[in-house]
Amino acid sequence: MGRKVGDFALDELRKYHPELANKPVDFQDFWDMEKEMIRKFTPEVVVSWRDYAVPSVEVADLTFTSWDDTPLRGLFIKPKGVTECPVIFFFHGYTGSRGLAVDFLKWTTLGVAVISFDVRGQGDSPDYGKYSNGSRIVGWMLNGIHDPKNYYYTNVYRDMLLQLNWIRSSEFPVQPTKLGVMGGSQGGGLALVAAGLDENMDFVASDWPFISHFERALEVALSGPYMEIVNYFKWNDPQYETYEDVMRTLGYIDSVHFCDAITCPTLMGTGLEDAITPPSTVFAAYNHLATTKKEMEVYPQFTHEQNLFHEEKIIAFIAKQMEA
Amino acid sequence: MGRKVGDFALDELRKYHPELANKPVDFQDFWDMEKEMIRKFTPEVVVSWRDYAVPSVEVADLTFTSWDDTPLRGLFIKPKGVTECPVIFFFHGYTGSRGLAVDFLKWTTLGVAVISFDVRGQGDSPDYGKYSNGSRIVGWMLNGIHDPKNYYYTNVYRDMLLQLNWIRSSEFPVQPTKLGVMGGSQGGGLALVAAGLDENMDFVASDWPFISHFERALEVALSGPYMEIVNYFKWNDPQYETYEDVMRTLGYIDSVHFCDAITCPTLMGTGLEDAITPPSTVFAAYNHLATTKKEMEVYPQFTHEQNLFHEEKIIAFIAKQMEA
Amino acid sequence: MGRKVGDFALDELRKYHPELANKPVDFQDFWDMEKEMIRKFTPEVVVSWRDYAVPSVEVADLTFTSWDDTPLRGLFIKPKGVTECPVIFFFHGYTGSRGLAVDFLKWTTLGVAVISFDVRGQGDSPDYGKYSNGSRIVGWMLNGIHDPKNYYYTNVYRDMLLQLNWIRSSEFPVQPTKLGVMGGSQGGGLALVAAGLDENMDFVASDWPFISHFERALEVALSGPYMEIVNYFKWNDPQYETYEDVMRTLGYIDSVHFCDAITCPTLMGTGLEDAITPPSTVFAAYNHLATTKKEMEVYPQFTHEQNLFHEEKIIAFIAKQMEA
Amino acid sequence: MGRKVGDFALDELRKYHPELANKPVDFQDFWDMEKEMIRKFTPEVVVSWRDYAVPSVEVADLTFTSWDDTPLRGLFIKPKGVTECPVIFFFHGYTGSRGLAVDFLKWTTLGVAVISFDVRGQGDSPDYGKYSNGSRIVGWMLNGIHDPKNYYYTNVYRDMLLQLNWIRSSEFPVQPTKLGVMGGSQGGGLALVAAGLDENMDFVASDWPFISHFERALEVALSGPYMEIVNYFKWNDPQYETYEDVMRTLGYIDSVHFCDAITCPTLMGTGLEDAITPPSTVFAAYNHLATTKKEMEVYPQFTHEQNLFHEEKIIAFIAKQMEA
Amino acid sequence: MGRKVGDFALDELRKYHPELANKPVDFQDFWDMEKEMIRKFTPEVVVSWRDYAVPSVEVADLTFTSWDDTPLRGLFIKPKGVTECPVIFFFHGYTGSRGLAVDFLKWTTLGVAVISFDVRGQGDSPDYGKYSNGSRIVGWMLNGIHDPKNYYYTNVYRDMLLQLNWIRSSEFPVQPTKLGVMGGSQGGGLALVAAGLDENMDFVASDWPFISHFERALEVALSGPYMEIVNYFKWNDPQYETYEDVMRTLGYIDSVHFCDAITCPTLMGTGLEDAITPPSTVFAAYNHLATTKKEMEVYPQFTHEQNLFHEEKIIAFIAKQMEA
Amino acid sequence: MGRKVGDFALDELRKYHPELANKPVDFQDFWDMEKEMIRKFTPEVVVSWRDYAVPSVEVADLTFTSWDDTPLRGLFIKPKGVTECPVIFFFHGYTGSRGLAVDFLKWTTLGVAVISFDVRGQGDSPDYGKYSNGSRIVGWMLNGIHDPKNYYYTNVYRDMLLQLNWIRSSEFPVQPTKLGVMGGSQGGGLALVAAGLDENMDFVASDWPFISHFERALEVALSGPYMEIVNYFKWNDPQYETYEDVMRTLGYIDSVHFCDAITCPTLMGTGLEDAITPPSTVFAAYNHLATTKKEMEVYPQFTHEQNLFHEEKIIAFIAKQMEA
Repeated sequence: MGRKVGDFALDELRKYHPELANKPVDFQDFWDMEKEMIRKFTPEVVVSWRDYAVPSVEVADLTFTSWDDTPLRGLFIKPKGVTECPVIFFFHGYTGSRGLAVDFLKWTTLGVAVISFDVRGQGDSPDYGKYSNGSRIVGWMLNGIHDPKNYYYTNVYRDMLLQLNWIRSSEFPVQPTKLGVMGGSQGGGLALVAAGLDENMDFVASDWPFISHFERALEVALSGPYMEIVNYFKWNDPQYETYEDVMRTLGYIDSVHFCDAITCPTLMGTGLEDAITPPSTVFAAYNHLATTKKEMEVYPQFTHEQNLFHEEKIIAFIAKQMEA
Repeated sequence: MGRKVGDFALDELRKYHPELANKPVDFQDFWDMEKEMIRKFTPEVVVSWRDYAVPSVEVADLTFTSWDDTPLRGLFIKPKGVTECPVIFFFHGYTGSRGLAVDFLKWTTLGVAVISFDVRGQGDSPDYGKYSNGSRIVGWMLNGIHDPKNYYYTNVYRDMLLQLNWIRSSEFPVQPTKLGVMGGSQGGGLALVAAGLDENMDFVASDWPFISHFERALEVALSGPYMEIVNYFKWNDPQYETYEDVMRTLGYIDSVHFCDAITCPTLMGTGLEDAITPPSTVFAAYNHLATTKKEMEVYPQFTHEQNLFHEEKIIAFIAKQMEA
Repeated sequence: MGRKVGDFALDELRKYHPELANKPVDFQDFWDMEKEMIRKFTPEVVVSWRDYAVPSVEVADLTFTSWDDTPLRGLFIKPKGVTECPVIFFFHGYTGSRGLAVDFLKWTTLGVAVISFDVRGQGDSPDYGKYSNGSRIVGWMLNGIHDPKNYYYTNVYRDMLLQLNWIRSSEFPVQPTKLGVMGGSQGGGLALVAAGLDENMDFVASDWPFISHFERALEVALSGPYMEIVNYFKWNDPQYETYEDVMRTLGYIDSVHFCDAITCPTLMGTGLEDAITPPSTVFAAYNHLATTKKEMEVYPQFTHEQNLFHEEKIIAFIAKQMEA
Repeated sequence: MGRKVGDFALDELRKYHPELANKPVDFQDFWDMEKEMIRKFTPEVVVSWRDYAVPSVEVADLTFTSWDDTPLRGLFIKPKGVTECPVIFFFHGYTGSRGLAVDFLKWTTLGVAVISFDVRGQGDSPDYGKYSNGSRIVGWMLNGIHDPKNYYYTNVYRDMLLQLNWIRSSEFPVQPTKLGVMGGSQGGGLALVAAGLDENMDFVASDWPFISHFERALEVALSGPYMEIVNYFKWNDPQYETYEDVMRTLGYIDSVHFCDAITCPTLMGTGLEDAITPPSTVFAAYNHLATTKKEMEVYPQFTHEQNLFHEEKIIAFIAKQMEA
Repeated sequence: MGRKVGDFALDELRKYHPELANKPVDFQDFWDMEKEMIRKFTPEVVVSWRDYAVPSVEVADLTFTSWDDTPLRGLFIKPKGVTECPVIFFFHGYTGSRGLAVDFLKWTTLGVAVISFDVRGQGDSPDYGKYSNGSRIVGWMLNGIHDPKNYYYTNVYRDMLLQLNWIRSSEFPVQPTKLGVMGGSQGGGLALVAAGLDENMDFVASDWPFISHFERALEVALSGPYMEIVNYFKWNDPQYETYEDVMRTLGYIDSVHFCDAITCPTLMGTGLEDAITPPSTVFAAYNHLATTKKEMEVYPQFTHEQNLFHEEKIIAFIAKQMEA
Repeated sequence: MGRKVGDFALDELRKYHPELANKPVDFQDFWDMEKEMIRKFTPEVVVSWRDYAVPSVEVADLTFTSWDDTPLRGLFIKPKGVTECPVIFFFHGYTGSRGLAVDFLKWTTLGVAVISFDVRGQGDSPDYGKYSNGSRIVGWMLNGIHDPKNYYYTNVYRDMLLQLNWIRSSEFPVQPTKLGVMGGSQGGGLALVAAGLDENMDFVASDWPFISHFERALEVALSGPYMEIVNYFKWNDPQYETYEDVMRTLGYIDSVHFCDAITCPTLMGTGLEDAITPPSTVFAAYNHLATTKKEMEVYPQFTHEQNLFHEEKIIAFIAKQMEA
């Protein structure tokens, strides 16, 4: 059990609306330029349909050659025979993968197609990025940490922009009648970022997002990938001489900084005993969302773990978006 | 990670076919009489259809008043509009529950209906059994441990027999074109028992079953519910004076003792690092199955944990049964 | 070691006198009616004297058929040959048992008889209660949690009322010249309840009582049986929809709510590092005791554990009551 | 729980009768000379009777000035008014103390007096020994480890010899009608040693003795004071250059080497999950006892912990000795 | 990792300047008298030069017979051939030892000689002290705890005074051109004490000192030797009846009480996650130093562990002192 | 403590000489071709001399642009003023770094220069490799695991070959009179590989080498980087379908496969409680060394941890090589 993670009490969390002091002044320009840059690429995507046990769906393995030639593996699953339908763009958690078809059957039963890619370096997809530094810490969090233009998550967001372009293109195997994003932990953070970058997003389901409000996360997280940065300081920079530098890079990719651009219906969830993505970092994102059609489900005893109760909430949320 | 649980190596496991010295000589008579007894009951079942977010399915909450009046809560989910279809009878793990509808959508997408009940005392269903003993150990494993006729799992199996009668009756909301059983851990053990008790079962998916081969399980398990019995000895009978008595009761409910009556296709799985239901106790069941249409999936590094890779195997197995 | 359990500092504990907002308005009526109801029963008690190694005492095994026919096993030990003497009614801790004769020799050496029963379901005594719910949590804490009239501890307190009636009856093997109650943890809570229910009680020794001040206990406990309720919320009601309902039931059995009826000499003890029955929940009881003849022994470094130093305090306390 | 300590199975334990290769050839001479030496001392003992709550006993605090002037604190408790009675010489466990009077009431109720001393350095008594070495390991095990004539336990056994002389002298507050020794862990080892050194001992109760069969103990113990020696090698002699030297010293004080001189009734106990005094080291002692009036109680699930079930066995054993 | 030790935040630490309420009024007199007493002794020192692999240094093993005849083993290492040079007096940590020559080569490369002794009882040196008490706690912290004149650390400081006299005498193998003290943990505390006792000290390097500000240390430490005192209270004095007495003794040896006499350049370091010598106890010492030539290196993520980054700081600090 | 890692007993370890069944038949050709390829590169090395506190040494920071342009940071430290001297090529452990100058002063005091580089990706140096896969496991072990020609350690060994070429070139800041390699864990494995690849190596000090005898390491390791491969199977390939493929790649880089080419004096060390680089994997390397001038230091109680005792052995070993 995860009692006593040392974060705020629930009533304080509900009104936790921190100033975004770490948001760079050129944040908007930075991402406008990146979008511009990505628009120039046409991804090469190999779509390999394969036999799958469930007759009512069609499944394809994808190889998506991204803007820097990194080949990202993906999975696409759709209701059999449809040519247009709602689409969920799913993002996986840190150390996860694009997933297995069985993961997504609960969504296709709603008549929705699901597209999911490995995040670069993760799953079994490589990362062709050439970062300017290594570190004493295993993991992806420190790759390029001193250079916002060539930081790991900057590259991940570039992949996402190119993937969104493809999804909205005529090359995509179905015509999306709606497009939503979904994920938990890293996937929850990426879902927020996608919805912030794509103004036409239709809905967001973001569970206990990671990559959110680093100023606080580095103070209160007790395990998980935020600790890679904490441990980077311990082992590579024990007296925090590059702290400003690190925070500057993180300012460009913090999912909270994308929240004021999110205007579509959004469902979020958090466990109050979560020491990996502490609840205050989740509420920081939630309370900065521009949309008023938002809901936060709170699970007082949950840590950073699978939560089937919340999956029922998401099913209901998605179903409602389908009706709208 | 669960390295080094102290069980046999894989090649030994594959040929582990222990004598069933603890199977009572009157095992068959015992259960024939129980079936006879249960046949006299007609369960009262309240079926409450409810709204559910997914339009393609129908969901009902059940209250099943069992042979001793214990009201067991259940869940039924079926493809919308069908009146006959294959049915999966699902059993949950120890300390689990009948589950949420979202758990079962991956099966209904195959055109299958799923029926699932709380095991008595578990989920949120009571147990009206009057057992002749208590114990210093929290849990259900010791209830009635000295009396095979009024042991906890004897009563659970009676519930199952009555539930099977209902499923095969005209009262059941759909006509089962096939009937299979499925579950993991306790649910895996119950699936084996159900297939052993019901000679017309069509298929079994039993993941790392609990309630299997107690003689060995009490020696090698390191955590989980087998330890309730081990700890019973520690705190209630420290010098094992009632060991024979306890083993005699367990002999009537050990799922391995039902395996020679299982003749339908069966899929099993085991993690070699599983200290809760150690692999040798799983292979003991597998190697005693009467059926030749059986498959064992082995996961060398897995402990007693969720395994999505195996879920893909189950999906394929079920789909294949649907075709047959 | 148990450092830093997160409870109040000692000077705050000493003045911690919380309002009893969760005490039901009909608390007194509820228990008056229960006493009335129990008065109608005459327990059937089988007293089996047995050989015991120590010549100076006599030991009997008891079977006490309670108000709902639950057969509770008990132990009675008295100085050899006496027909009247002081009596200690002893209550055991959660997951304990009525105990062994050797446990009680330190008290009989004072010329005192000791009577001790298994709490229903615990020790090796059954519980014939038919509760309206089960749960995903092993243990007794959730049995009947939504129904004050049929909650586990309501039934335990009914047993205790009937046992007290028997002890004060002419059927009891000795004539009590004094009657005191004693116990630790669950036993400490039960001792308080017994002294609150029986206005003629002569003394109380309650060590770090459990079942005390649930409002706070559910917030600060880190392990032990209070966590069964916390975990019930996690797994059976993750968003606390039945919180009011649960607290309503607990309001009727919270030992703190019995304290203003305790007017006899009372000795209590607490360890400041106790994460199972945190010190604030113990002081809540102590500070609500009506008696002025009360003493609290504080052990700064002790967790929830055996404390022989405190046993010396209890010996001295009991000896003093014998003189009075 | 202590599962899987890596020691032998029970049937092997029962016949484990290791050769005593580490017993020095001059073992008998060594201790004959020590006895001779100690006989020359007359201890100065201050006996301070004090008030104690229990009227049926008398309690004295002792200060026993030992052969090297070390003042050892002790406790004496006897049935009130008697001048002769059986006496139990009690030895405490490592990091324990002479105990509190309440610890011993269960024995005085049998009409027995109990004498108990702090082991030097332990409890709150000092050790005036001047050892020729220190170590990087906290604890008493390494004091004088290279010198059998001035090793910690050699000095402890000298204290014991002098204490036995006093107990058997006319200075002792009662006349012992019988004399037995008792203790657990370190106390169990000391009880064996006392019975080996004093040929007139009447009975022994030795629970899971420490200081037994070091050759094996250093291989299989996983925690507790044997590990002080293991860790001494790690931190003071990482390549075991003084192994022979250390073993030579331990050969003089290993309690197993005293067992062939024990001819009185002996009760022993062991937990099969004991990683502090592993069961094979206990059986090594038991199987070398010269007496045929011996009993070994085996507790399969017990670790190195308090065991009330065994206390009942001891009560019965002592009572039987009283009769004899 | 050591996150969340519960000590003050960094900005509070920087200004933490607690009143020294536990400093005895006769503190100065006490130590003046001790210095006076020690001045009367001439230590017998055996200096055994030995072969050592590194040609540029000379190494000697020392046996230093201290004021009470305790033979303390030491190590001396100096640049080959010099007869005068700067000298570092090194003190080791609790459960450490005088060290190996390889530990000190980094200092001799600076042209410095290093002298290091086992702290009595530690390393492999004995302690001939006759303390008036033992305890239930393994370790050295409680030896003589009720008697400032015969407390363990009082004796250790006497050794140090005599060692300083020897170092400054003509008997010492080199003529110290400068004398500095150095150490971490216990060694850091001893370095402060040495600099407080010797007014001619030239520099101090004290890493996360132990023996500092006991009032707070006993409250916030979570492991390590401060816990010996905390556990002494638990097991020897559970209700803190001797607390004043213990604190009185500690008042004479608390390194913070020596800090206002330190006027030479001082380098200190602390890890903010240190639960053994919590940062507030380190800042208490630092902020009470009389010298203005002081530096505190702060390592936010470090626990009580080896810190090579800080070793670079010390090298630079020592090099700078060599120049001065 | 690390007791009971489950590896062989010492006498079995001493004769453990496993067949090298996993050594590829073209192993020699593979590395001959790699050497050939690397010979074509001339590294660009930036040598930046910097001020360092210790006057007797000179320190330079290096940037070494490797064969694929990866800029590897390095450290060079030499006795002041010399132009030729023995050189130690030092390799750091997994998650370590090139180190700090203070780490190497103990070697320069011997008149030796030390050169040390970050292993690519580690320390703070990047890895420009484009691997064909990612994984769900954080760390470097899986990078390129399916392709011997583009596996992480293949690239690391290429860096090493180029670094050796540079060290032996006239560009190197000193003329090496001897060249030895040294390191622990990963560094110990790299030292063996370097000595196997460079037939003119003068000596090797390899402590508890990692990257050794993968067939066994994957079976017995319990933590550390071997577990990255074990966990790769769990999460990326749960049924070991690519096992042969993975082992094929590892066959080219297993340090044991380089041992029969090592003919110079070699010192090794191992801790028998090491669960990260288990002792059998270390003895596998040792027993395959071609040289007869080899020594294995065994530390029975040591886990995978710093060992100053062994550093003294290394100092003596290096000093001896200097004389030779």
